[in-house]
Formats: sequence, structure tokens, C-alpha cells
Amino acid sequence: MYVKHGMSQLTSLSSARNCTLSSSAVLRRQHFLIRSLGGGVHSNFCTQNRMQETKPLEADAENILRAITPTLDPTRHKGQAGKIAVIGGCREYTGAPYFAAISALKIGADLSHVFCTKDAAPVIKSYSPELIVHPILEESYSIGDGDKKYISGKVVAEVDKWMERFDCLVVGPGLGRDPFLLDCVSEIIKQARQSNVPIVLDGDGLFLVTNSIDLVSGYPLAVLTPNVNEYKRLVQKVLNCEVNDQDAQGQLLSLSRRIGGVTILRKGKSDLITDGEIVKSVSIYGSPRRCGGQGDILSGSVAVFLSWARQYILAAEGNVTIRPTNPTVLGCIAGSALLRKAASLAFENRKRSTLTGDIIEYLGRSLEDICPAY
Amino acid sequence: MYVKHGMSQLTSLSSARNCTLSSSAVLRRQHFLIRSLGGGVHSNFCTQNRMQETKPLEADAENILRAITPTLDPTRHKGQAGKIAVIGGCREYTGAPYFAAISALKIGADLSHVFCTKDAAPVIKSYSPELIVHPILEESYSIGDGDKKYISGKVVAEVDKWMERFDCLVVGPGLGRDPFLLDCVSEIIKQARQSNVPIVLDGDGLFLVTNSIDLVSGYPLAVLTPNVNEYKRLVQKVLNCEVNDQDAQGQLLSLSRRIGGVTILRKGKSDLITDGEIVKSVSIYGSPRRCGGQGDILSGSVAVFLSWARQYILAAEGNVTIRPTNPTVLGCIAGSALLRKAASLAFENRKRSTLTGDIIEYLGRSLEDICPAY
Repeated sequence: MYVKHGMSQLTSLSSARNCTLSSSAVLRRQHFLIRSLGGGVHSNFCTQNRMQETKPLEADAENILRAITPTLDPTRHKGQAGKIAVIGGCREYTGAPYFAAISALKIGADLSHVFCTKDAAPVIKSYSPELIVHPILEESYSIGDGDKKYISGKVVAEVDKWMERFDCLVVGPGLGRDPFLLDCVSEIIKQARQSNVPIVLDGDGLFLVTNSIDLVSGYPLAVLTPNVNEYKRLVQKVLNCEVNDQDAQGQLLSLSRRIGGVTILRKGKSDLITDGEIVKSVSIYGSPRRCGGQGDILSGSVAVFLSWARQYILAAEGNVTIRPTNPTVLGCIAGSALLRKAASLAFENRKRSTLTGDIIEYLGRSLEDICPAY
Repeated sequence: MYVKHGMSQLTSLSSARNCTLSSSAVLRRQHFLIRSLGGGVHSNFCTQNRMQETKPLEADAENILRAITPTLDPTRHKGQAGKIAVIGGCREYTGAPYFAAISALKIGADLSHVFCTKDAAPVIKSYSPELIVHPILEESYSIGDGDKKYISGKVVAEVDKWMERFDCLVVGPGLGRDPFLLDCVSEIIKQARQSNVPIVLDGDGLFLVTNSIDLVSGYPLAVLTPNVNEYKRLVQKVLNCEVNDQDAQGQLLSLSRRIGGVTILRKGKSDLITDGEIVKSVSIYGSPRRCGGQGDILSGSVAVFLSWARQYILAAEGNVTIRPTNPTVLGCIAGSALLRKAASLAFENRKRSTLTGDIIEYLGRSLEDICPAY
């Protein structure tokens, strides 16, 4: 367990391309990095292991949020506060990728990209001039069978040429379930993994990896954010059993471990977060409205916060004052807490007519309340 | 009459597929259900029959609205507060389906879909990222004669695969009158009916069923919401006479009975609502502005409220404290009252420049005034 968490922690700090992901290579890499860092990380793991409880501990979300959110320094330049890319948006769905991408910006990312189908692009562009929208994905209906291989290669190459610029991918909001499109997205996930780019998976992205779990298995920079139904499917597929709410924490830990230590944020009345080592809960009161789109805010938010958490951990050089220390878990805790606070403020104002767009309008104020700009 | 109302009430609670709609089958079903419910429903019918008056009674709209609006419970998940679908939106009209669909969300539905033509979709999508817009309907101009059967089958199958997820369809806002498109919509209505999904018909949807009354005849979950002209055409076509305002209530009752007990909301200075058993009026002061689009708000609102009324009646298990008890009538009363209140608040604020979008912005506050979230 200690070894696996070490892998999670350390690989997430690495920016080397093409690292081999089989477990023996990971072990070698982990030992090398522990040696390089002089054992400072070692003591953190021990602390974390001691923190394990039988019941999930409420995360110290506000402190975590304050710690990982970067100070606003006038000397910094465009891009340093985060470059996020959303892979999603098809003929049917355009709202979801917009919600994810604009939420990332509203929290403080500098650049937010969307990679979507050609049909979806003009619509997503029309929602906001703040986003960079790439009309490059293709669905089966628009291409002949003979062209599939060529077009797939083109699509994947097009995303890959941007890959190294991104601090995090969000895969899934409004992606749809077209088989050809999902094949291309599988390749994009493989490339992101090769480039050590963190990936948040939600919606149809989660549908894809639930059916092809190898895409994320053993990748410590993958975050899955299932809702009730998505979690049920994931448990059935991976653990081959039904959801057990009597031992929610134990089952969540098993699930994460079975997928090789990916981080899972199980959405619910309380959000439960694990990386296979620890389980944390976020129970801040949000909103009782269940309008569609809130999951998209969450995925965009987690993407920003986990990018910031990685920067924070890297800069702290072992002097990390918050627990836990796995940046994907920190990102989930911060994203969950911020969404809940914004939803609660929006609901206070809009009551039953609260929509996802209203919640997004409160992301900034919620962050400011917890972590003032100056 | 007693028997017919029983059918209306009880079939509306049933979720069984493929119920036969001929009157003998309905009678058998009704007797079975009355036996199953231990006669509790019987006494309601008697009460309702006693409530019949020669003049329409003003509905106790605010109490009804409070009773049927679900409490906001944090344990509920996405979809439980309602999933509505609007069938409408063509090359010519895009505002109407947007108004209907966004109103459903602003009242408190969780998900709102629009099924429209390919031309209309990007525009409707661009009005709001909150809606899920399916570009699947086709008009004659875009297809060859030889393809009609194939394309019609595809369109209908595409809507049908979603059908069971919907709590109510709104058919008509901005639908247009293209013959091929209306043929497809006729099939969609038949499928909704087979799946026992309630249908609110307005605008061009009402034009369609006025000319093909069998589409809704005898379906207790159909709601027609005619304005002055649409009502005139309906009376002419079904009753073969002119509108008689001396006996507005009697004629409305006859009309509903002649169409086998569908619910009719006749819009006017006062809205009159009947299911062929009782007539209720809603006369709350609204707005003197008659800008286009208010009927679309009404159709989307009725869809949400009738879905909530069905849930309420089902959960009450015979202990229903409001009258009447037919959920389609309850939905009409609540929808009419809320629109009038919102229109009045919008007019207070915007006066002559009040537009439909302004009224939509007051739906939330109006609901909150009558039925506070907490």
C-alpha cells in the first residue's frame, strides 16, 4: 500500500514523457525519485497511513483550498495559473463541455480549451468568447468506413500537438457515445497518459473507461467522478458486485485499489474521495436542486485545483502543511467544496429556479470568501 | 361520467406499457384498479361529482401549487424532480420551444430536452447551455420522396429510445406545419401514448390533433391548451358548431367529453380547465401584455406541474387533501396560476416593454412567494 501511494504521489510530480506504466517500471521510478528527494516524501506517506480511519474523515476543505490556490503575483504570465482542456461536445450535447470549461476559467485558470465535434463547435463558441474551441472530433455518421483510420489518426494527432501545454484534461462532458468518437478518445487518453497529463473523467468519458478499464488502470493521475448511476455501473463492472452502502468506505477503497490506485470522487449527499489509501468526505451543505450540469462544474473545478495542487506540492519541496498530500485527492476535495459553496449561495438567491449557470456565477465569490485574492 | 373520470384518474397513475385504450378494456382496467385500491378512490369521485357547479368554481390554485410541488430533499438525485421533453422547433421557429423548455427548468425540473429540426438545433442550443437539444426532426424540403419512409422510421425511433425517461412531453411549440414533419410527430404521439407518457399539446401540435382528433381521443393523459383561435377551430371541428360564450362551461365540458375526457385548458381572461367532469377557473390577475411566447411558458409549466401532481397523487395513496384529484387538471391549474403571477410581477417592473423572457425571469420568485423552498 505504501509503495502504491508512493507511486501515485511521485509520478504525479513527474513531467517526463513516455514513462513506462507497468508496475515494475513504476517501482524502479519510485525508488529513484524517493532517493532523489532525500526521503522527505517517505515521512509523508507514514503520516498518511496513520491517518486512515474506519469512517471517512471530513476533509479540512477550506484550509486545503487556501493552501493550494496560488497567490496572484503580477510577475506571473499567461498560462501559469492553469491551462485546461475539455474533451467533449457533440451533435447532441453542447452545454456540458461549456459548463466544465467556463468553470475552470471562473475559478482562475488562464486558458480553457474545448475539443469537440464540428457540429458542436459553433454553438459552444457562441456561449462564450472566453473559450478556445477546436472543432476536430468526428462522429460515425459524418465519415465513410474507408476513411476511419485516416481520420482517427488526424484527430488524435491534432489533440496531441497541444497535449504538452495542458495541465489537465477533462474527458467526457457531453462527449456522447458514438463508437468511432469513443475510439478516438481512447487514443487521446493513452497519449495524455504517456505525457503524464492528469485526466478527470466524467459522464460519457466515465462510460468509456468503465467499459475499458485498462485505459486508466494504474494511472495515478486519473480521477473518476461518478454519480449514483455511474458508480453503480463501475462497481458492477470492476468489483463484479452491487453497491454496498453499509461499507461505502471499504468498497470505495477496494474499487480504487482494483483500478490500480486511481482517484475516485463518489458524488452523493456527502462526496467521498479516495486514492486507494485514504478516504475523505466533503459534506459542506450545497443545494437540494439536482438540475443537470452540476457534475460538469465539478469536473472543470477538479481539473484546475488538481493542477494547482501539483504545483503547490512541487514548490513546497517536502514542507507540505496540509493532509492528505496526493494532489489528485486535494483537487477533488477543493473542487467538491467549492461547488457545494457556490451551489448553496446560488440556491439562497434563486431557490427552486437555480440552474447550473447560476451556480457558475457564484464560483468566484465562493472562492473569494474562502481564499481572498489579497 | 363517474366511470370515465375513474379511467382518467387511474390510468394516469399507471405506468404499464401498451394499455389498450378501447373503452371496454379501460372499464376492465378501472374496475381492477378500484378493487386494488380498496375503494379509496371511489369516495374521491363522489366528492368530485358533488363539487360540480353550473358556474366554474375558481380553483384553489395556491393551495394546489403548494401541495403538488415536491419538497427539496438533499437525498434526491438528478432526474427525480422531473425530465421534460419539448417536441418543436423548425427552420422558421426557434423561440417557442426554448421558452417552453427553459420554463420547465426554471420551475424546478431537473432536465429539459428539445427535439427539433437540424436547422433549429444550433440556434436553440445557443439560447442556453442548460437545455439538451436533439437535432433529429426533418422537414419535407430536406428529403427526397423515396427516403420518407426510412427517415420517418429513424426520427421516430430516435425519440422513442428516450421516451421512457420522460415524465411529460410538450408537443407543438414552434413545430411548424410541414406535412412530413407532422406525420412523424403523429407517430411520436402514438408512442408516447403507448408508454403512458403525458402529453401537453399547444400551437402547431394542437393544429395537428385538431385535424386528427383520434391521436388524443380517449387518452386521459393528454392536455390541450388552446388560445381563442385554437379553441374556435377545435369547437368547429369536434362539436361541429361555433363557440358559445353564453354557456362557456357547458360547451367546454361537451368538448372534453367528445374527445374522450382529455383535459382542456382554455386560455382567456380567465383560464377555464376541464377534464369532462369538472370545470375550474383560474382568474388571478396576470398582465395586459399579449406578447407572443406566453403560451409556451404555460405549456412547459403545465408539463412540470402535472408530473409533480402525478407523483403527489401516487405517494398520497388515497390521502389526497386537495380537490380536484386528476393530476392533469392539477397541472393546468398550477401552471396557469404561476404564469399569471409571474406575468404580473414582470409587468409591474417592465410595463409596456414586458417580453416573454422577462416573465420567465419571474417564474422562480413567483413560485417562491407561493411555496417557499424551505
